Amino acid sequence: MRALTAGVDFGGTSIKVGLVSRAGRVVARQQVASRDLGSPAQFVQGIGGLLEALARSQGLGARHLRGVGLGAPGPVDIGRGLIHSMVNVPSWHDVPLGRLLSRRLGCPVFVDNDANLVALGEWRFGAGRGASQLVCLTLGTGVGGGLILDGALYRGAGGAAGELGHIVVDPRGPRCGCGRRGCLEAHIGIAAILRLGRQALRKGAARLAKQVREHDGELSPRVISLAAAAGDTEARAIWAEVGRWLGAGLADIVNVLNPERIVIGGGVAGAWPWFSASALRVLRAEAMPAPERAVRVLRARLGNSAGIVGAAVLVWGKSGGR
Amino acid sequence: MRALTAGVDFGGTSIKVGLVSRAGRVVARQQVASRDLGSPAQFVQGIGGLLEALARSQGLGARHLRGVGLGAPGPVDIGRGLIHSMVNVPSWHDVPLGRLLSRRLGCPVFVDNDANLVALGEWRFGAGRGASQLVCLTLGTGVGGGLILDGALYRGAGGAAGELGHIVVDPRGPRCGCGRRGCLEAHIGIAAILRLGRQALRKGAARLAKQVREHDGELSPRVISLAAAAGDTEARAIWAEVGRWLGAGLADIVNVLNPERIVIGGGVAGAWPWFSASALRVLRAEAMPAPERAVRVLRARLGNSAGIVGAAVLVWGKSGGR
Repeated sequence: MRALTAGVDFGGTSIKVGLVSRAGRVVARQQVASRDLGSPAQFVQGIGGLLEALARSQGLGARHLRGVGLGAPGPVDIGRGLIHSMVNVPSWHDVPLGRLLSRRLGCPVFVDNDANLVALGEWRFGAGRGASQLVCLTLGTGVGGGLILDGALYRGAGGAAGELGHIVVDPRGPRCGCGRRGCLEAHIGIAAILRLGRQALRKGAARLAKQVREHDGELSPRVISLAAAAGDTEARAIWAEVGRWLGAGLADIVNVLNPERIVIGGGVAGAWPWFSASALRVLRAEAMPAPERAVRVLRARLGNSAGIVGAAVLVWGKSGGR
Repeated sequence: MRALTAGVDFGGTSIKVGLVSRAGRVVARQQVASRDLGSPAQFVQGIGGLLEALARSQGLGARHLRGVGLGAPGPVDIGRGLIHSMVNVPSWHDVPLGRLLSRRLGCPVFVDNDANLVALGEWRFGAGRGASQLVCLTLGTGVGGGLILDGALYRGAGGAAGELGHIVVDPRGPRCGCGRRGCLEAHIGIAAILRLGRQALRKGAARLAKQVREHDGELSPRVISLAAAAGDTEARAIWAEVGRWLGAGLADIVNVLNPERIVIGGGVAGAWPWFSASALRVLRAEAMPAPERAVRVLRARLGNSAGIVGAAVLVWGKSGGR
């Protein structure tokens, strides 16, 4: 019998849902705006219906689903499948999403932190394949991390490990959302990148201004990359600065964890060609010699499917083998 | 038959050797100056002889030794029992100490990094007992670390994990021995503490000056603690500063690893009552809420026996059970 596993990637702006084959391929996918599924009951009905429709599109029923993996940002109670809170949805408190969705669909549902699932996905099917010690860094609005240590996902004592965006790279740096000063996220999260972009515009970065005009006046990491590609010096300097802070954070990570591989994912990783040189230069110069020699740094391969694929990997791990 | 396991703690100034009972007790011990065993051949003869003498003191022969664990500072090739280099002994290069000592004694010898063995010792018999995720920080001339993650020693891809002293806490801070600026070790290693002590003396710290005079003119962390106990404001300020930097480093560690427990050991941990308050205050204020709530920070319990006891734990783990 054909069996498919479903992955749900529950993000702040959109919820991505997909069916994953045993080869790690997303064979069908859908996306819905997070705000359209505001309450837990709406979420369970909406996602349940979407998954059934996806299964039907493959000539299957929901009963053919082997299981569902679900990744959510922020703290998650893995054992009980609880989502403690959703930053963008104030009404969510300790929602037993795993149980609710499992009852709706009649198959097991496993819940984990979204950055952990990205790491699982890249580890099994992406740029982290074959590594026993893998650090997966996700660059976006937040800077998150997932750790594969000695061949298994490492969650820490309470499922909160891998907050790599909250390593301080400069105690005099900008205030971070977490309350601390100078976290990696406060330097290279999207808000920080856009702040650097606005500074560059004020300094008269002409090609960057042109790109902004051509994108309905919107500044974004992608627009800054396009300006860098068009030869804008200030745009290139922004990415060089992002790379330097990233490199400093990576040096700390390499000194602590001695990973075999580091994979850089998330939306901002699209600008990897623009910030990789400065990131690697700082990492190579600053990490201790032994762990520095041991590590390779690669860009993620699964793009925005990593969370869905990783959710399926989670299910396979929980239900014994693939 | 009574079986004892031997531990060797190979430090920069002294080599400690002991026999460890199955209950983790050091039943006999000896110490020799590192410089007296300069060459690898001298080391093997000297340590071999010491271990035989210790066994005899217990009414046993060397053939009753179940195995020997040996901890050395710096990078170690665990699989081949190789010591790559010894900072204080320039003639050591890739010495197969495990094999040489094993041949001399006729029992298995296992080699590992000294900070890893301290962590194993505190985990099995000290302040880390029962913790599944344990970070053991060793404060001394260097600042080292050993990691127990998900119930096993974590060594990383090349045995170099846990370089916790080389997390940068201030990129504008003092130059570190590793070449980077502002590492934790550059702020709270003994050299940094003594620098703060000399500054305090220049500022006229009277009770500190008195303690120095009473200790043959020698400034040391212990002398600074005695001055703090005698009410010296500057001495107390030194420890408060050490604690603040330590707390900042601990916050990074807690955010990355979400440990259940952190154990603070090494010679400088003797001053724990003087720097714990500021360390814990900064840790509690700066770490992310979820991992912050999950962690307890304790002073190490095994003192300078931790390395010997941990070396025995290493042997038991390698040879299957205790």
